[in-house]
Amino acid sequence: MTTIGSIDNGVNVQALLDAREALKASPEAAQFTWRSTTRWENGVHTTSTVKHFFGLGAEQTHKAQSEFTADHPEVFAAEDNGITPIEYLLVGLAGCLTAGVASVAQNRGIQLRSVESTVEGNHDIRGILGVDSDVRNGFNDIKVTFKIDADASQQEIEALVAQSQKRSAVFDALANPTEVTVEVN
Amino acid sequence: MTTIGSIDNGVNVQALLDAREALKASPEAAQFTWRSTTRWENGVHTTSTVKHFFGLGAEQTHKAQSEFTADHPEVFAAEDNGITPIEYLLVGLAGCLTAGVASVAQNRGIQLRSVESTVEGNHDIRGILGVDSDVRNGFNDIKVTFKIDADASQQEIEALVAQSQKRSAVFDALANPTEVTVEVN
Repeated sequence: MTTIGSIDNGVNVQALLDAREALKASPEAAQFTWRSTTRWENGVHTTSTVKHFFGLGAEQTHKAQSEFTADHPEVFAAEDNGITPIEYLLVGLAGCLTAGVASVAQNRGIQLRSVESTVEGNHDIRGILGVDSDVRNGFNDIKVTFKIDADASQQEIEALVAQSQKRSAVFDALANPTEVTVEVN
Repeated sequence: MTTIGSIDNGVNVQALLDAREALKASPEAAQFTWRSTTRWENGVHTTSTVKHFFGLGAEQTHKAQSEFTADHPEVFAAEDNGITPIEYLLVGLAGCLTAGVASVAQNRGIQLRSVESTVEGNHDIRGILGVDSDVRNGFNDIKVTFKIDADASQQEIEALVAQSQKRSAVFDALANPTEVTVEVN
């Protein structure tokens, strides 16, 4: 039988459990602000930069600055310099659910060997083109399919994914509404 | 006075207007599926790949394959190999709204000189850590602030941003709920 001590998914679960206890006592430290700055290049081509965020009561910095290119594909008469903005949501969703699977597996003493997923977002583009005002602008629906090789039963693997979903920031951000304010300076 | 003929934001508005007409007659061609595949690296570190999508009734391919790294920062006891999954949502939101501003400006004959934006997502991480079940997992709220230099009045610029928001796929995907299904193969 696999014990917690002998498995290693690379997640420091003890630090997360300690953080949970620490933040119970100081909820103000749990208030994070994530930030991205974006500049228009030309057409529908943009570059976004992510480096700084706020959390634990102070300004924080990622080890490195990351840059991301967004554009529209050639079938939208654009230059396809990068993926479309809406595809970034799928990248975030799979990243979050997979991180959750690894963390929950670590906490439950389950050794992962591989985790792969495909995320598909169905999108009726008549909404954004203004063809039909009954069609929404965003995804119709999103489907995530996991393929997981782990030292566990199918039932245990399904329970990992279910628990990850229950605690996923990005799953919640897509499945439930968020107030988004847009201002011009 | 600026005429539509003399301005150029790099957006082929005529192609978009033609697509709108074409998709009125064949709504099945407007059904797109965007895809991302993700593999677990170690810990909460993942790599996502985006290349193929479906649309206009056929498989389509981006000019290049894009890879994205997600991880958690060092303050979460992780290695910070890349931005957090939830930050990808902010990248997508600004990219989408900015593409919309450029497209609407082109359609209205307004020459843009520069468009910059900052997106801030407030996030109480007590939700994902399981400190307090009354705290949601996702963002509390998101704020986007634009700074736009254009050959237009402040009122016209604000109207550009308002119209972009009204037709934005990512704004809708974050402001309103989407059904997300998660399965294990």
